[in-house]
Formats: sequence, C-alpha cells, structure tokens
Amino acid sequence: MFDVFGGSVKALDGAAVASIQARIDGKTKPPGALGELEHLARQLALITASDGQAPIKLERPQMWVFAADHGIASAGVSIAPSEVTQQMVMNFANGGAAINCFCRSADMALTVVNAGMLASVEHPAVIEASLGRGTQDISREPAMTLEQCHAGLSKGAALITAQAEQGTNVFGFGEMGIGNTSAAAAVLSALLQRPASDTVGRGTGISDEVLVRKTQLIEQALERHAQLPEADSVDVILASLGGFEMVQMVGAMIGAAQTRSVVLVDGFIATTAALAAVRLVPEVREYMVFCHRSEEQAHALALTALQARPLLDLSLRLGEGTGAALALPLLKAAAAFYNDMASFADAGVTEV
Amino acid sequence: MFDVFGGSVKALDGAAVASIQARIDGKTKPPGALGELEHLARQLALITASDGQAPIKLERPQMWVFAADHGIASAGVSIAPSEVTQQMVMNFANGGAAINCFCRSADMALTVVNAGMLASVEHPAVIEASLGRGTQDISREPAMTLEQCHAGLSKGAALITAQAEQGTNVFGFGEMGIGNTSAAAAVLSALLQRPASDTVGRGTGISDEVLVRKTQLIEQALERHAQLPEADSVDVILASLGGFEMVQMVGAMIGAAQTRSVVLVDGFIATTAALAAVRLVPEVREYMVFCHRSEEQAHALALTALQARPLLDLSLRLGEGTGAALALPLLKAAAAFYNDMASFADAGVTEV
Repeated sequence: MFDVFGGSVKALDGAAVASIQARIDGKTKPPGALGELEHLARQLALITASDGQAPIKLERPQMWVFAADHGIASAGVSIAPSEVTQQMVMNFANGGAAINCFCRSADMALTVVNAGMLASVEHPAVIEASLGRGTQDISREPAMTLEQCHAGLSKGAALITAQAEQGTNVFGFGEMGIGNTSAAAAVLSALLQRPASDTVGRGTGISDEVLVRKTQLIEQALERHAQLPEADSVDVILASLGGFEMVQMVGAMIGAAQTRSVVLVDGFIATTAALAAVRLVPEVREYMVFCHRSEEQAHALALTALQARPLLDLSLRLGEGTGAALALPLLKAAAAFYNDMASFADAGVTEV
Repeated sequence: MFDVFGGSVKALDGAAVASIQARIDGKTKPPGALGELEHLARQLALITASDGQAPIKLERPQMWVFAADHGIASAGVSIAPSEVTQQMVMNFANGGAAINCFCRSADMALTVVNAGMLASVEHPAVIEASLGRGTQDISREPAMTLEQCHAGLSKGAALITAQAEQGTNVFGFGEMGIGNTSAAAAVLSALLQRPASDTVGRGTGISDEVLVRKTQLIEQALERHAQLPEADSVDVILASLGGFEMVQMVGAMIGAAQTRSVVLVDGFIATTAALAAVRLVPEVREYMVFCHRSEEQAHALALTALQARPLLDLSLRLGEGTGAALALPLLKAAAAFYNDMASFADAGVTEV
C-alpha cells in the first residue's frame, strides 16, 4: 500500500549534525542556554539546510485544515451537532475562526479542505476533496472502505506535494469535524493496544455522562475492529476506526516529509494522525515539530509513543491547527538565531 | 520613597471584566477552549481597552536591556569574567546577540542601557544612565548607597514613561551583567526570607564547586544585610544586595504600569525585579505578563510568590529578555482572536 504516496521519505543526513551543532555552539551564549530552541534549530537545519554552512529556510508556511463528518456524532458524543462542522468551515472560509486569526498573526496562509463532510460548502476558499458524505458509525461498522482510506492517503499527499513544488517547506495540519476526538481515540487505542478508557476524553467539553457513553461506544468499536482480518495494519485501523480528515492528514504529513518540508503537529487528533503516519513511514518522524500539548488527556499517550515534547502548553482544546499556528513564531525565532546571531569570534566575546 | 517614581499606578477596572469576558465567550469556540490565551486576552483588554467594546491595542512593543557589573563577580561566581558584560553590550549594540535576533523576529524595538558597567560603551545605540562603575561586593558591603538605589528607580521609571508618551504600551525588560544571578539570589532571599541555599542556582552554567562557593558568599551577604537598620524595606534590600541593572528594571516596570503599559517579565532576574516592584507598588502586578519559566531553580520561588504561571517553558537560561521577546507573538495572537474572531451570532454558528 505504500505506493499510494507516490514517493519515499528520506532519513535526514546524520553526517551534517556535527557542523550544525558546531554552528550553534559557536553563538554568543553559554552552551545550551537557548534550551529547546537549540534542539529546534538543529532539526530545522537538518531538514532545510544542507549543513552547518547554509542558513535555515522557512518558506511561505501554510496551514491546511481538513474537515469531515463522523457517523458516530449522531450518537451524541460531542457537545455540538454535525451541522457545526459545516458552519465552522464557512467560518474558516470567511476568515472568522480562531485559526484564521492565528494564521494572520503568524503570517501563515490557510487552506481548508472538504475531506468528507455531510454537505459540501460552496465557497472558492474551500478545496473539494471529499471521500464521502461523512463516515459510518464506527461503533457498528467500519468508518470507510480500505479503498476510500487509500484514496484519502493519496489525496492528502498529492495536495501537499503540489504546494511544496510551489515553494512552501513548512506545513501545519488542522482539523474540523464534530465527533473526531471519538475517531481519534479509537485509532489511538488500536495503534497502542490500549482500552478506550485510556484514550477517550472530553473533546471540547462533554459532561461526565456523555463521557461514559462515548467510552462505551469506542470500546464497542474496538471490539468490532478486533474481529477484522489484518486488524493490526495501520491502513485497516484508519479505515475501520478513523475519519476522512484523519486519513487525509496522515497522507498530507507523509507528502510533506517526502518533499523535505517541516511538519507541524499540534493537538490530539493531529498527533494521532502523526503516529499513524510514522507507523506507515518511520522516517516521517524526523520532519515533525510538536507544537502544543493539548488538554485532551490521551494526547500525552500519543506524544509519549512518538517521544515528543511539544513547544507550547497553553491548555488549548480547540483543534483547527491552532497550536501549530501559535508555535510558528518559535520556529522563526530558532531560524533567526541560527542564521543571524554572532559567533564568539565575530563579536569578539570571550568564549565561555 | 514612593515619590521617586513621580506618579501612581492605577488598579485595573474590575467593572470592565464582565463585558470583556462576554466578548471572549461569544467567540466561535467552546467556552475556555483557548486556555491561557483567554486569560491573556482578558488581561490585555483590561490594560489597553476601556471595556468589552474596544479592541486590544499593542502599540510599538519595545525591549529594554539594562546592563551593569557586580562587585561579587570578582569572587568568581559566574562562568564568565566581568569583561563579558561590556563585550555583550557591544554585541547588542551591533545587533548580534540572541535578544537582537528574537526582537527582530518579533518586530520589537531594542534599547540597551548602561545602568552601571565597569566601563562605558561608546556606541550611539547604548543609552548612558550609569549609577556607578559596578556595584560593591555584596558579600562584604552594600552594593550601593540608598541614594544610588533611589536614583536608579527614578531613572528607570523616567526612561520608560518617556517612551510611553511616544506611543509604546508594551515593554519587555532584559538584563546583562556578569554576576547578576548572585545579586538576584540575594535579593530574592531577603524578600522571601529564605536561605541562600534556596535561591542560589547555576546561572548560565557553573560547576558544583562554584555553586558551593556562590552559596557561601550569598549567605555571608545575607548575614551582613540582616544587621542593617530597616533591613526588611525593599529599597534597603535592593541597595544592599541588588545590582544597578536590577534597580533600574524595578523602576522601569513601575514606570510602565504608571503609563498603563503591558509589562513583560521573563527569567530569574527579571522576575526578582518584578517581585521587588510589586512589593513597592502592589498594583503593578496587574500589568505583568509572565513570559517564560527559566531553568534557574529559584525562578519557581519568585513565580510562586507572584502567583504567576508563565506562557512559555523552553528551558532557556540566558537572560537578555529573550523569554519576553519569544512570548510577544502569543500576546499578538491573543489580541488577534479578541479583536477579530467572529462571534456565534456573526458567523451563524450554533452556540455550544
């Protein structure tokens, strides 16, 4: 199934680490004094620069928000009804949502994709790439067919590689879809072989009672899933338990890494997609920058599985790619010090 | 001594909270879903907007870095010799330091002040406001006279209020001064009545052996200080144990609050100055945004005393105001959502 991506992902060049680290250590600061930004600069240099001589380049950063509906939403697992998916996509298209504000603030272009909403949105700002009119209810049947899943992985990768050819090398990934923390919890449970009680959370804010119901439904979905042939295959997991936005995000992340772009990963759903992407193509992990630690309890599980420490911890629980857009200025700051800060030799400062 | 600031600090208008919170809650997101950014937006609106109708305004943000030398540095409490203070100020003036890179990245103007260096720096980018050629060795005698301390508080306030009159309403405060974590540890110990072992840390990276020596010297300074008349007065503490850059920072923070400006506070030394400022004028606390949790162990003590939770935690241990400059984009993002995000009513989204 790997040929659905139409390309491979190269591991980063370990031989360049020494010259990149030497450049960082030569800057006018005590060794390691810029903490996480030093790790970030090293990674960005490995991705975007050839070695310690070349500058980090962050070109025309883009945010991609994938929207889709979920059959399980009709069981009332969210604080909002499915109509809100469409309403929020219109809000994105009209520039009024949180992610619009944060993208403008970070000078990041925003694209919205209909990955599989119940109803299409007629708006020039929304790309139609629908895999179907919402998934099936995963507590009773597979979310989608394996063909739909493969088509979604392909489509996501193709959307991003086309943009990379236009010169972008930083991509953030957001999502909108009422019910999608349920699908993400199910996928994460299957990927990590953990019960639903470990992965189901409050999403954007459900009550104790709804939380119990949501957990039961996901447990039911996992029991159904376990009966499938090849139930451990990542594509089978995504098809059986995932969502249309999620499979396109997985493909998009792999596509970004294929084109040697930085992959910004933020909240629970994006990180679950990231884990699926890394299970499919392990080299993708090297291109990922983890942006935000979500309030959703199971996010920590997904981060641990990826050995990731996010840059921000602002108690967000919104999705939309908001954590990624908020972290982008830190990437720019890391690039700024790596590219422009004086060395001890340049500045005539006594090396410490 | 309060008249050294030439003005008072107004408490924020509690009556405006309800309309500001209503504006935040009306935005197209689940209640509270933007986490810390909602608290930040509320504070910025209270400081810069009259009520929930007016937008947040962040005008021409400025970073002020105060540089000074410390008598105690000659006892070898730092990884670097005192010459490095002057070398780094030249580096700031020439645009080559980390804070220069981060200020450029955040579109923040940078001003450097000689608050009391061993030698002046002849450079048009450095403001001369020297209180003396370095402090005395605090392990043996008071850092400065009470008159110098009061002059520094006044000077710091005057520098900032003059800028606020030119239209700036966001100020970050950084410092440079070999030995200044020693002075900050001594001041924090005296303010919180804790032993040196609780407040002395590794600064930018000293060895175990130097750490023991640094702790002994600060304990000695605290014993000497305890014999002074009015040893509990904040100005006596600053004069006896502080540094020239620290007293100007304290005055500058109070001056910023006097002019209804946002006060960005980052690392260990800035937070110790912030605590001193709040002890002198409690209303200043309401204007402070805490930007970064430093690696310096005692920073947590100072933050707890101020009931502060910083926005960022990036394991920085550099000073210079770097944490404040890195956090500025989060203030801009908070303002962006508060000012521009659609309400449920505007966007036709079902309210959740």
